Amino acid sequence: MANSRSGDSMTERIVRVLDTFTTERTMQTATEIAERTGLPSSTAHRIVGDLVAAGLLERDEEMRIRLGMRLWELALRGSSALRLRQAALPHMEQVQTVIREHTQLAVLEHEEALFLERLSHPDAGANITRIAGRLPLHASSSGLVLLAHADPALRERVMSLPLRAVSQETVTDAGVLRRLLTTIRRQGFVVAPGSIERVSTGVAVPVRNRGEVVAALSVVLPRESAPAPAVDALLAAARGIEQELGSGR
Amino acid sequence: MANSRSGDSMTERIVRVLDTFTTERTMQTATEIAERTGLPSSTAHRIVGDLVAAGLLERDEEMRIRLGMRLWELALRGSSALRLRQAALPHMEQVQTVIREHTQLAVLEHEEALFLERLSHPDAGANITRIAGRLPLHASSSGLVLLAHADPALRERVMSLPLRAVSQETVTDAGVLRRLLTTIRRQGFVVAPGSIERVSTGVAVPVRNRGEVVAALSVVLPRESAPAPAVDALLAAARGIEQELGSGR
Repeated sequence: MANSRSGDSMTERIVRVLDTFTTERTMQTATEIAERTGLPSSTAHRIVGDLVAAGLLERDEEMRIRLGMRLWELALRGSSALRLRQAALPHMEQVQTVIREHTQLAVLEHEEALFLERLSHPDAGANITRIAGRLPLHASSSGLVLLAHADPALRERVMSLPLRAVSQETVTDAGVLRRLLTTIRRQGFVVAPGSIERVSTGVAVPVRNRGEVVAALSVVLPRESAPAPAVDALLAAARGIEQELGSGR
Repeated sequence: MANSRSGDSMTERIVRVLDTFTTERTMQTATEIAERTGLPSSTAHRIVGDLVAAGLLERDEEMRIRLGMRLWELALRGSSALRLRQAALPHMEQVQTVIREHTQLAVLEHEEALFLERLSHPDAGANITRIAGRLPLHASSSGLVLLAHADPALRERVMSLPLRAVSQETVTDAGVLRRLLTTIRRQGFVVAPGSIERVSTGVAVPVRNRGEVVAALSVVLPRESAPAPAVDALLAAARGIEQELGSGR
């Protein structure tokens, strides 16, 4: 009943529909959604109708479809992302008052860095990160910290694949990356100039919950800024978040 | 194919599974989920398995199930909740630096106030609001603002139903509520002492996007605090958010 002839579950087909929405594409017609899913048109239209009926999608007067508040509510209520982010937010604000650029929180999700939160100063420099956006583990400063502390099997798998250059300065050599990850584990932070964008430097530190690294806290600085104050602010904030997580609040 | 014999769609059944998670109940066994959905056990277990396979739920080593990061990502990427909240956050932080209690952002969703964001000072007083939590329209200060500016048909429907007392001071008389809503529209804010909790006063203002009220911005103060500084801070923040929304950023 839940499976179509092609063998994918109804759940997978619903995910394919939701997956057509991105930070740049927040409104679509049902026909555009159907085309982008690659599902048979009648199937896609029926799923869209069901999702609208359940409130997970919303249809406006011009029949355009967007993600529904109900989906947001279902996803956040009781999510570990929200708990982590709530523990981190006051400490991220502390970093912002000192560094006044971009402060962000990321977790390891499906071999990428997934960004849970970002605070930006109105006058801050370039930064391509978005909330609920992703960056490669080997390129972003947050990703490097997460990769350095990841399960060794995952680390080896990432390093066995071609390491894509996001910028001219992204580390794409597995041997160089391996030594960098060792350094990150030893020194407890990373400074990654230009690895995502030529004009920016990423600085990141690990955040632990009961000894295990559960997130990376980072700032994105203009390339010419000295990283030391950011390292200090991030390490202090990470300690604060760890105390909050450890107290089980 | 998508419909069971009882006539509910597969989407509805998936929502029933996700709906068993709450801010207080973030981990469940598959059997607990099955019981709480009221679905046949085999159906519920299969949906849980499909949701785990798609990453919308996650299973830990002890076979407990929690909401997955993938669900969070799908729900936030491209959501209007995130755009609204991103526009509001810097202005909410401004309110927090002055008022130092709880600052929150809510939208009208299914005849209730749904809270999108909450910033709390470490020393702030009582507040039952939670992110992704809900409060009745007629009782919370945010809800009163949203109800005052809601579609007249929705307003009449809410007032035609029994108005539940959340506290001893909740307005439960439709006539009194109607006059209160008129006052809110005229004066542009509400001060609601004790309507949710005896020890607190809610203060809320509307936030408009191109003339239409899209959210309520509120603070929760200790009952003994003067509300005027909060009203001023909220009105200034609402203007800032409206400029940001209007600029289409």
